[in-house]
Amino acid sequence: MPAAPLRLGLAGLGTVGIGVVKIVQSHADLITARTGRPVQITAISARDRSKNRDADLSGYAWETDPVALAQRDDVDIFVEVMGGHEGAAKQATEAAIASGKDVVTANKALLAHHGHELALAAESAGRVIRFEAAVAGGIPVIKALTEGLAANQMRRVMGVMNGSCNYILTRMQNEGLSYEAVFEEARQLGYLEADPNLDVGGIDAGHKLSLLAAIAFGTKVNFDAVELEGIGAISIDDITLAADMGYRIKLLGVAQLSGRGLEQRMTPCLVPADSPLGQLQGGTNMVVLEGDSVGQIVLRGPGAGMGPTASAVMADVLDIARGLRLSTFGQPASTLATAQPAKTATPASYYLRMTLLDKPGALAKIATCLGEAGVSIDQMRQYGHQGVNAPVLIVTHKATRDDIDHAVARFAATGVLVGAPVALRIEEV
Amino acid sequence: MPAAPLRLGLAGLGTVGIGVVKIVQSHADLITARTGRPVQITAISARDRSKNRDADLSGYAWETDPVALAQRDDVDIFVEVMGGHEGAAKQATEAAIASGKDVVTANKALLAHHGHELALAAESAGRVIRFEAAVAGGIPVIKALTEGLAANQMRRVMGVMNGSCNYILTRMQNEGLSYEAVFEEARQLGYLEADPNLDVGGIDAGHKLSLLAAIAFGTKVNFDAVELEGIGAISIDDITLAADMGYRIKLLGVAQLSGRGLEQRMTPCLVPADSPLGQLQGGTNMVVLEGDSVGQIVLRGPGAGMGPTASAVMADVLDIARGLRLSTFGQPASTLATAQPAKTATPASYYLRMTLLDKPGALAKIATCLGEAGVSIDQMRQYGHQGVNAPVLIVTHKATRDDIDHAVARFAATGVLVGAPVALRIEEV
Repeated sequence: MPAAPLRLGLAGLGTVGIGVVKIVQSHADLITARTGRPVQITAISARDRSKNRDADLSGYAWETDPVALAQRDDVDIFVEVMGGHEGAAKQATEAAIASGKDVVTANKALLAHHGHELALAAESAGRVIRFEAAVAGGIPVIKALTEGLAANQMRRVMGVMNGSCNYILTRMQNEGLSYEAVFEEARQLGYLEADPNLDVGGIDAGHKLSLLAAIAFGTKVNFDAVELEGIGAISIDDITLAADMGYRIKLLGVAQLSGRGLEQRMTPCLVPADSPLGQLQGGTNMVVLEGDSVGQIVLRGPGAGMGPTASAVMADVLDIARGLRLSTFGQPASTLATAQPAKTATPASYYLRMTLLDKPGALAKIATCLGEAGVSIDQMRQYGHQGVNAPVLIVTHKATRDDIDHAVARFAATGVLVGAPVALRIEEV
Repeated sequence: MPAAPLRLGLAGLGTVGIGVVKIVQSHADLITARTGRPVQITAISARDRSKNRDADLSGYAWETDPVALAQRDDVDIFVEVMGGHEGAAKQATEAAIASGKDVVTANKALLAHHGHELALAAESAGRVIRFEAAVAGGIPVIKALTEGLAANQMRRVMGVMNGSCNYILTRMQNEGLSYEAVFEEARQLGYLEADPNLDVGGIDAGHKLSLLAAIAFGTKVNFDAVELEGIGAISIDDITLAADMGYRIKLLGVAQLSGRGLEQRMTPCLVPADSPLGQLQGGTNMVVLEGDSVGQIVLRGPGAGMGPTASAVMADVLDIARGLRLSTFGQPASTLATAQPAKTATPASYYLRMTLLDKPGALAKIATCLGEAGVSIDQMRQYGHQGVNAPVLIVTHKATRDDIDHAVARFAATGVLVGAPVALRIEEV
């Protein structure tokens, strides 16, 4: 006797929602073969019913209100691909759990802000929330971290998880264009969110990092503690000069738990040009998972788009169809720890770029400031004078961010600096 | 009330077995937090009880015979890290299934040769066989393919899955050394199996490829149909000249299902130097998974070693502890198809290296042979004459292997060739 169908209520018929429809319709046999039961869409919901969506939706019941969709008796899994972390998405997800549905969502913002409470509610109700599509699109990174590396104490999790930012940075590098020029180009190509600061401000990627950190370290998701710095201040000069020293600049997320607490950063960093992260071009995503037994695992793939994101949504659906029922963050939400945010980051080498007046002793004064702040110099390059001003690059030995900031604060008093120096962390990868 | 412990019977106390012991002993709390139940080792088995193994094994019952271990009443999962595809490993695995145990194994040879019958037996008995550690060591590739990409019709699966071969090839390239020199070095460093042909002949990696192909395409594992060609014939000349044209030589596994049947190759191939596969250095493994929705996913990590392999073994154990019970190859073994092995490979560009006598018209004769065989030339380079002989490199447009072989067969009749030409496939990655 064939198993009863697993019935999806699909909220959101944008790119990802239609991608889900296409997989369900085109791969019915494959899905049944792999899970042992048919997967069907029974009902759908979106803001505008009349829009032409290039998919046959005629067999599905329509709900104008996603909350009503979430509560339907003929829905087993509420699939939320609407987006937005307040309002309808949140209400409908809560309604789904309250009415005994499992939830599969692509909504990183919702989980970054409300994931802990939602996980508690789901576990009280005996329901699961899965969110593979919320982090790094088609890359099965939630699964790799929660299950594949489950026997590891994780050391560090890193990632380039906003394709638009990596597109901008790599195009600046490859074409020698300014940030402003490539930003405008990306905007016109539709690569950026309606509020571009979600992308270039690191917020979207920060959401993703906070979810990975919760799983990796068994801590309550805490997006507010993510140190966020976007790419808007990255100049083509920094990209070019970093390249000259063998580095690439990436908007890199890093989470690690140490004696100093939980570090969560989504900031522009230098990484070696010949590392997997350094080699990553365009809109592709990459996540690096480091565990005590496994060492380093690198996952690379498309971070967005109809097919990849729908692939991830459907992976969660197929897991549930196969009977896999995991806690939202890999262990019961009630057992997740409250991690103290680290006050200071793990020491690292830093890249410093500044322009010095062409005066005797100028470089010595800078070096003195660094020494007085306890920062030692690993490499220094002074470039040919452009008029009276000389661009200077310094790569420090490992230092704390505080020491770097102290040194930079001292630079001002030397009177040899033109403009403000740039300081970027060099992440060891 | 805490859940009952999950009890492991561990057969094999080599590097991987001791790695499993270390994780179970050091991460008991973490494992219980993540799975909701304790995981314990109750009994162990190995050939030599007296050997010093740098681990406290005093709490475990000892069995000299792994079959007896597999049948113990206090064992829930038989963990097989002995190796070998006949004899004790096979008998003990069969005994485990027959006596109602789940099986977690790192044994690629056993599954490549007997995986289908073992999967049938396990499914009849309501037991599972999991084998994450059998393919690409610490990389959670079985999970990514079976679960993470389960909603995809897979297009192609590729991988560099023998670290020793990649170590040899990249060291040849980086140091300009001969195959023989690096092979000897690798042997002395203990990087090669007792029978080195398992590594350099592509057999070990071929076992892994056949397992990936079964999952990817829903077909019965068929190692005998894998086209195997080792790296023993790769010369430093090929590595250097391929690099000059922007390629790297890898022992690359490729499986794809097309109208021509199931292709499974584990052969030396050229890949672009700037691709993730081309950039892979040393003993690291890489697997590339291509699905119709997700596009291309690349996984990179350590393919061997105590920690990585034990991490993968324990991931399977934790899956079972969490209640995940999947079919061995992702769908019931009785539903796996018998794929027709492809008679010819998907057309590709080929790299041809030959040495020509310094005679007028020599190159024209070679070009004529190619044209007559229906092979067109994409790039050609003739290198400065060394005495009377000129090394010539040709990159063809896409051609079938048959056409390439026909062309090469014609070369002999021209009388302008010195020695045998080398023909290597250029895999599009």
